[in-house]
Amino acid sequence: MRIDVLSLFPHMFSGPLHDSIVGKALEREQLELKVTDFRQYSTNKHGNVDDYPFGGGAGMLLQAQPIFDAMTAIQQEAANDAHPRGRVILMDPAGVQFTQSVAEEFAREDHLTFICGHYEGYDERIRSLVTDEVSMGDYVLTGGELPAMVMIDAITRLLPGVLGNEASAPGDSFSTGLLEYPQYTRPAEFRGMAVPDVLLSGNHQKIAEWRQQQSLKRTLLRRPDLLDQLELTPAQRRQLRDIQADLTESEN
Amino acid sequence: MRIDVLSLFPHMFSGPLHDSIVGKALEREQLELKVTDFRQYSTNKHGNVDDYPFGGGAGMLLQAQPIFDAMTAIQQEAANDAHPRGRVILMDPAGVQFTQSVAEEFAREDHLTFICGHYEGYDERIRSLVTDEVSMGDYVLTGGELPAMVMIDAITRLLPGVLGNEASAPGDSFSTGLLEYPQYTRPAEFRGMAVPDVLLSGNHQKIAEWRQQQSLKRTLLRRPDLLDQLELTPAQRRQLRDIQADLTESEN
Repeated sequence: MRIDVLSLFPHMFSGPLHDSIVGKALEREQLELKVTDFRQYSTNKHGNVDDYPFGGGAGMLLQAQPIFDAMTAIQQEAANDAHPRGRVILMDPAGVQFTQSVAEEFAREDHLTFICGHYEGYDERIRSLVTDEVSMGDYVLTGGELPAMVMIDAITRLLPGVLGNEASAPGDSFSTGLLEYPQYTRPAEFRGMAVPDVLLSGNHQKIAEWRQQQSLKRTLLRRPDLLDQLELTPAQRRQLRDIQADLTESEN
Repeated sequence: MRIDVLSLFPHMFSGPLHDSIVGKALEREQLELKVTDFRQYSTNKHGNVDDYPFGGGAGMLLQAQPIFDAMTAIQQEAANDAHPRGRVILMDPAGVQFTQSVAEEFAREDHLTFICGHYEGYDERIRSLVTDEVSMGDYVLTGGELPAMVMIDAITRLLPGVLGNEASAPGDSFSTGLLEYPQYTRPAEFRGMAVPDVLLSGNHQKIAEWRQQQSLKRTLLRRPDLLDQLELTPAQRRQLRDIQADLTESEN
């Protein structure tokens, strides 16, 4: 996969994305990442890329021209390498909420381009270049760089061969659709807090049942919305009924 | 404000957080940020901080001991500087969804500590140190570092004096509760795409009305859930009825 990023702060990407999973994917050439400073495409003699909004108002807006010209250059370079135009992603609070299924969809593409605007605003015409507007959530950030890094991390983990032997734990939230069960490692007792006996029992069937039950219970208590999206097995439905009965009883 | 971060990858923070708003807040001493590599608190002779899960399963878990000892050291250092223990934040998919109102709540604190686990898992007993479990959304990331940076960016923007003259545009989504209206900057025509006439009219009342109408329309079409949370003014309610009537008419 090729990922292009358009950003005014390309050096923001050097630390975070060259560590851990993304760094390894780059080394192994499972991922090609190019961060382009679109200021270099400014036709303004001072290299400006922003200007005042028509109609007045506070804040400066990113102009269309540098982004359009940077996109043309990137798309040409990608085409020379036999990559398609691919998806062009803009972070916008009006966009689709980024979730694991959006990450999975993007991970199936051959070429992604992230435009990192600044939430102060950008010229509306930039949207005409964009195939996907994506929101990271209902909060205000300084720029699109951190959200782009978050998405690139989530997408890269899903590329074929990237996780390899470091495959995520089978209880990983969102891969089973349930929240993760509590996990413990050594020592068995730490500052008066003991590991549940069942995990030390060596009885694999009991351990599996306990974990399933804990996952269901935690999901029921903290994210019941996730249960609505799942097709539970008959065994899970039975466990869930037992958990609900226990909870009702302890309330009375 | 003092922000502590516990991370195995402290150099991930150097690029992103020293740029733009967060970097300026650090320079002006409106924010003090310390990233602690908790590996240095490992009592294991190889400096290991993870171990196999009790009860079996794939993946390694962060152990409690290095995190507990790093927290003790951090809290002591903060106390010496007259900071309270403050809030201790863990990124967890079971947590409260991070939103602008969570950012506002955190921005009122004097001391925050972010524990960056790895989503492969951590020893359950680490949760006993935590005051707030926060989720960035329903997706899987390699570690807690990027979400911590996102939260630190959102929080820092809200600290008194940080934005200064760079105050966010008044139409900023989530400050008004509505999505932002379309914005345009020069040139008035770009590749056949023209700026709406009203914005070039110089009629400030008409511009304000158009922007309000566009904000309402975009919110209605793309994030109707935001409208439910708002107390609209009588003028806004009238505009919204007109927009709905127009949309119904264009459907017939």
